[in-house]
Amino acid sequence: MSAVTVMGSGSWGTAMALTLCDNDHQVTLWARRPEVCHKINTEHRNPDYFGDLRLPDSLAAVDDPDRAMDGAEFVVLAVPAQSLRENLGRWTIPDGAIVVSLAKGVELGTELRMSEVITQVTGIGADRIAVLTGPNLSHEIAERQPAAAVVASTEQETALAVQHLFHTATFRPYTNNDVIGCELAGAAKNVIALAVGVAAGMGYGANSGASMITRGLAEIIRLGEAMGADPHTFSGLAGVGDLVATCSSPLSRNRTFGEEIGRGRTVAEITASTRQVAEGVKSCKSIKALAEEYGVEMPITYAVCAVIDGHLGPDALVRALLSRAPKAERT
Amino acid sequence: MSAVTVMGSGSWGTAMALTLCDNDHQVTLWARRPEVCHKINTEHRNPDYFGDLRLPDSLAAVDDPDRAMDGAEFVVLAVPAQSLRENLGRWTIPDGAIVVSLAKGVELGTELRMSEVITQVTGIGADRIAVLTGPNLSHEIAERQPAAAVVASTEQETALAVQHLFHTATFRPYTNNDVIGCELAGAAKNVIALAVGVAAGMGYGANSGASMITRGLAEIIRLGEAMGADPHTFSGLAGVGDLVATCSSPLSRNRTFGEEIGRGRTVAEITASTRQVAEGVKSCKSIKALAEEYGVEMPITYAVCAVIDGHLGPDALVRALLSRAPKAERT
Repeated sequence: MSAVTVMGSGSWGTAMALTLCDNDHQVTLWARRPEVCHKINTEHRNPDYFGDLRLPDSLAAVDDPDRAMDGAEFVVLAVPAQSLRENLGRWTIPDGAIVVSLAKGVELGTELRMSEVITQVTGIGADRIAVLTGPNLSHEIAERQPAAAVVASTEQETALAVQHLFHTATFRPYTNNDVIGCELAGAAKNVIALAVGVAAGMGYGANSGASMITRGLAEIIRLGEAMGADPHTFSGLAGVGDLVATCSSPLSRNRTFGEEIGRGRTVAEITASTRQVAEGVKSCKSIKALAEEYGVEMPITYAVCAVIDGHLGPDALVRALLSRAPKAERT
Repeated sequence: MSAVTVMGSGSWGTAMALTLCDNDHQVTLWARRPEVCHKINTEHRNPDYFGDLRLPDSLAAVDDPDRAMDGAEFVVLAVPAQSLRENLGRWTIPDGAIVVSLAKGVELGTELRMSEVITQVTGIGADRIAVLTGPNLSHEIAERQPAAAVVASTEQETALAVQHLFHTATFRPYTNNDVIGCELAGAAKNVIALAVGVAAGMGYGANSGASMITRGLAEIIRLGEAMGADPHTFSGLAGVGDLVATCSSPLSRNRTFGEEIGRGRTVAEITASTRQVAEGVKSCKSIKALAEEYGVEMPITYAVCAVIDGHLGPDALVRALLSRAPKAERT
């Protein structure tokens, strides 16, 4: 049994806190708003997510970050990618704690992966950081449906410790040492999910969706290889697995956002009507910047950026997939 | 413009004949039953498939195989995998014609791939055979929805000729020289689609489905590498692409068959109530035989075989995915 603090009470932080409680750890959930903590501590429900789900009595919610992390052996970071730096700047992670990153994204402006942001802000070395990723839609994890995941760390011992921490009867993490590939795949899949959503919103079916996923995967692999990732990572759970789960669920934020665009709504209209952020709307710009930096061709990502910026209509995405000259698959 | 004969008027043969007509080729469709030919020639509809779809006036249906292939420069084989040998034994393919295989399966008993069966029965060399595969659900192709595909041949010139033959505004074939990988992927995906269907039929969601797809892909890659395929093929359209399209469409026969099993029906009950064959029910045995021959671990395929044979219940499939000891992803 370990003392674990989950920093962030969004849908994913809440689902992972639940999984950790199922494993009999001593779990503290940090939530920014006192009223959310109060509900979790007294009614054992998160008022914002999974309203019908009773959380374990053992789960303690705390609104003060320092108090939440006091004595933690593992600190699980469950805040959105683009606000990780700001949050970390306000927090003091306990000495010796292992840090687990749940955020999927590449920081806008710096183009840093989340583990790089953690090291830059906190000084914590890569050997004490692990990334948890894979085909893990939060509401299904909260329902304790079976799923596999990946725990990546440059340090095998850290990966094994975090694998052990999360492994339950229904949640099976595999270890991996390719942090670059796992983090890149997690960020880039949101961009492809947007593209798949656009095609679905325009009325296209499974062939178009699967073609978009596959050609999207091909461009992520190109970028990954240029950045030093292991190409095998992308055919695994962090790559294909996460991409397929995100693209196939009607509940995925990024896919849903894309669908609305495909139906003809503007980014401003969709953003105004939804509370949750579609990370791909931001990540497409960081991934495009990485593609430019490494000189890699990423036609779907570029088309998503142009559609988000309003420079191109949704049909441009389908053109990006199909209208180029016929050629060999691996070029 | 080329003279092309499509041998087989099932859903996929019909959709490909339509695509070839869209490309202004002179297309003949062989159908076994005269009444089907009559309907296609007079009413321009296939009575068995896509009832609402008007076929091009230029499409000629013929029930005599020799007459159908007379003068053909390309012969497209669109009969089911397990009956290809028997059909080829009755036919005489014109000298010099390029043969395109559409069948996805591995022959039961011999464990031969379809292109190997073609060469064995007809004596036609691999350099004149191409395999067309990819994320191509037939009803969507018939609706002219955009899709990408793969044309594989050991002979680059053959692959280019067949790519050119099929390339339309909405159907984009890429060339590939890995015939082994493309054929194996096309056969094995039906087995994984069955497994994904079982999980869906039991009520599991996108995480389980995506995990099953990814771990299924991992075992297909293991077998492919042992057989001499290029592992990159499996992260492309013939691999991930076809697997995702088949697994994500509620109209896929293999997925649907698996769903019925997941809901508790027996193979005999499902077979009695459906006209179409789920190829995965047969292919799982050939793929398992290949796994044994090459000494490769394929837990999902083995579990599908055991469920089809009635030795194990559908929950065994989910156990095959999740209950093994935690370990590294690439082992």
